[in-house]
This record gives sequence, structure tokens and C-alpha cells, in this order.
Amino acid sequence: MGEPAGEPAQHDAADDWRQMKDVELTPILSASLDAFYELGYHGTTVREVARRVGVTVPALYYHHDSKEGLLIALLELSTADVLARAHDADAAGGDDPVQRLANVIEAIVLRMTNRARLASLEGEVRYLSAENRQRYRAVRKGIEEVVLRIVQDGTASGAFDVDDPAETTRALLGMCQSIPRWYHAEGTLSPEEVAKKYAAIALKTVGAH
Amino acid sequence: MGEPAGEPAQHDAADDWRQMKDVELTPILSASLDAFYELGYHGTTVREVARRVGVTVPALYYHHDSKEGLLIALLELSTADVLARAHDADAAGGDDPVQRLANVIEAIVLRMTNRARLASLEGEVRYLSAENRQRYRAVRKGIEEVVLRIVQDGTASGAFDVDDPAETTRALLGMCQSIPRWYHAEGTLSPEEVAKKYAAIALKTVGAH
Repeated sequence: MGEPAGEPAQHDAADDWRQMKDVELTPILSASLDAFYELGYHGTTVREVARRVGVTVPALYYHHDSKEGLLIALLELSTADVLARAHDADAAGGDDPVQRLANVIEAIVLRMTNRARLASLEGEVRYLSAENRQRYRAVRKGIEEVVLRIVQDGTASGAFDVDDPAETTRALLGMCQSIPRWYHAEGTLSPEEVAKKYAAIALKTVGAH
Repeated sequence: MGEPAGEPAQHDAADDWRQMKDVELTPILSASLDAFYELGYHGTTVREVARRVGVTVPALYYHHDSKEGLLIALLELSTADVLARAHDADAAGGDDPVQRLANVIEAIVLRMTNRARLASLEGEVRYLSAENRQRYRAVRKGIEEVVLRIVQDGTASGAFDVDDPAETTRALLGMCQSIPRWYHAEGTLSPEEVAKKYAAIALKTVGAH
């Protein structure tokens, strides 16, 4: 969109959830993300991450106590970012479940398409220790709750026609989460186009009218 | 369901796509699947697979020429199985797009829930060589085409209300593909229950009426 020429840049806080600035990663986490993406979690060694970032292994251990610590740090940054955006997108929809759901799906899909590498770490969650997996799931549950509340509100008000709000919520998140699998490979659409299409599909899925 | 007591077992070919017999894997492929699931593709060595199956490394190389060959063999078996079931499920729906879509989604979800380990290999596809990735995508495309054809037929006949059949098809497959991520962790539903729920959600997504 860009700012109107000649006018001072205005910061529209209500639209922040659409802006996809890079998640700020430390050099160590940035190198970890590259390595996990290219080599997989199990194929990555702490030594390899240290090599990529140009520090010694002990220096790396000073900041992160294990390879699992690196994965957890990335997952938490990534999930916290999408959770914050989902909340803002929800709030920007006011009282209208249709607008709220469209916004939240748009926010989630924008992140899946713009940050496919970070989003694809999700597939590595099963390698975490039981304790860390639980901790991570609790954060992710927050995103599920945002969507579930909208689906429930829309169903209660008659704006949506949904039989099973919990399962429908999971299906909606599932369609978004699968996007990184094909987006890079075949994407001729911009992230914004994909996001708008998925928002429309989500509204059909909840029988919005 | 089971056969009626006292009567000779009748084989109902039309319903075969609902029967989830184990995919038959050789001992080597079975050990590979275990190792890939537990250790990830990059964390698995051919030596580790040989150890699990109790053969020497040269004996293993006699059957499969590389670790990538093991992954490809598993992916092809898995995808060919779901493709065959999807075709049968589609055919069992006759001329009715609603029944065809419900059947095919049910078939895909039954496989995702009953065979979560095999289904989760999908996440390792990005590690394949470009050539093998193309080959695998061509088979997977077959499944997409089954669903796309139904969505197109239903849209053309007025049974469905869909704006973008291709994107809707991907969204439907995406919701199914994400099931292995949560099914083991939180599943209180049987595979059959999940399959029926997703068939109903899919019909909403295409605006069936």
C-alpha cells in the first residue's frame, strides 16, 4: 500500500498484524533456523550451528544450554509472534464474528506464507522432550483458543452454522498449517492473495452467512 | 462392523477402502519407518536401520541403494495406498458429488489416523533430491486430482458453492494432512469418528446443500 506521498508517515496500530517485519532473531538463532531447515533437527549438531555463526561451541553453550534449547527458543518466538498477531487481528474485527474470523485466518496465513521456514519448525515438535512439548503445546493452544472463541461466538449469534466448534477450529488451523508444505514449491500467488483466499474458504467452512 | 454370525464371510469389494489392514512392509522398510519416525530422516543412518533389522549394511544395500531409497520406497507405498483407496471411495459414491466427497475425505482421514507414523513421513519430503521430490509430487498430485474433480463436478452441477476449486481442494487436503500432528497427542476420538467429522466439515467447506 505505502503511505500517501507528501504526508508524514502515519502509524496505524490497528493494522500492525498485517505487517510482516522479520521476526528478530539473534545470530545464533538465525543460524539454528537455517541448519534445522536444511538438515533437520536430528541432522543438526551444536557444532554445526557454532560453525555457521562463527563462534566456539562453549560460547554457544553460554547462551543456549542444548540443541533442544535452540529449537524451543525458535518455536517460542515464532508462536508468540503469531499469537500476538492473532489477538490483534481478532480485536480489529470488533464484534463481528465474520470479520474477526477473516482477520485471524488472514493473519495466520500471512505468517505461514511469509515465514514458511519458521512455520515449518512445527514439524520438529515431536522430537522435543515431553516437558518441553507440553510447554510448547500450551502456547499453541492459545492460538487455538482465539479461533475457537470466534467460532463459538459466531455459532451462538447465528452468524455461523457449525456442528462441532472444536473440531472445526482444528480443521481451520490444519488447513493453514499445511500451507508451508506446498507454498514454496508451487506458489504463483502472493502471500496476501493466499491469505484472502483462505479467509474466504474459512468463512465457508463455518457456514457464514 | 464384523460379519453376521453364522454366515459365511462375504467380501464386499465396494467397502474395501474403509478396511485398514496394515500396509505390508518388508522388515527393512518397517525398521526404516521406526527409525525415521524416532530419529528423523537426517538422524537416521543406514547402519542404524541395518542394526534394527538384524542384517549387515551390505545386505541392506543389496535391496535399497541408499537411505533416500528407503524413504522413497516408504513414501511411494504410502501414497499409492491412499491413492487407491481414494479412487475406490470416489467410485463408491456413484454420481453424487456429496457422497463422493464425503467418502474420499473419510478414506484419507482414516489413513491419517490409523497410520499416523506413515502419514507423518510426508514432512520429510523436503529432504529428497529434486528429482525424487518431483517423482513423489506427481503421485501425490493424483490424490489432489481425485478431490479436485469432485469439487469441480459438484460446483458445475450446483451441488457445491465454491469460488476457487483448486485452492479449496488444497485447503481440504491440508486439514486432513494436519491430523497426525495432534491425533496421537490428544485423540479421544476413534479414527472412524474423526473421519466422519472431517467428512461433514469438508461438505461445509464446499458449501454443499
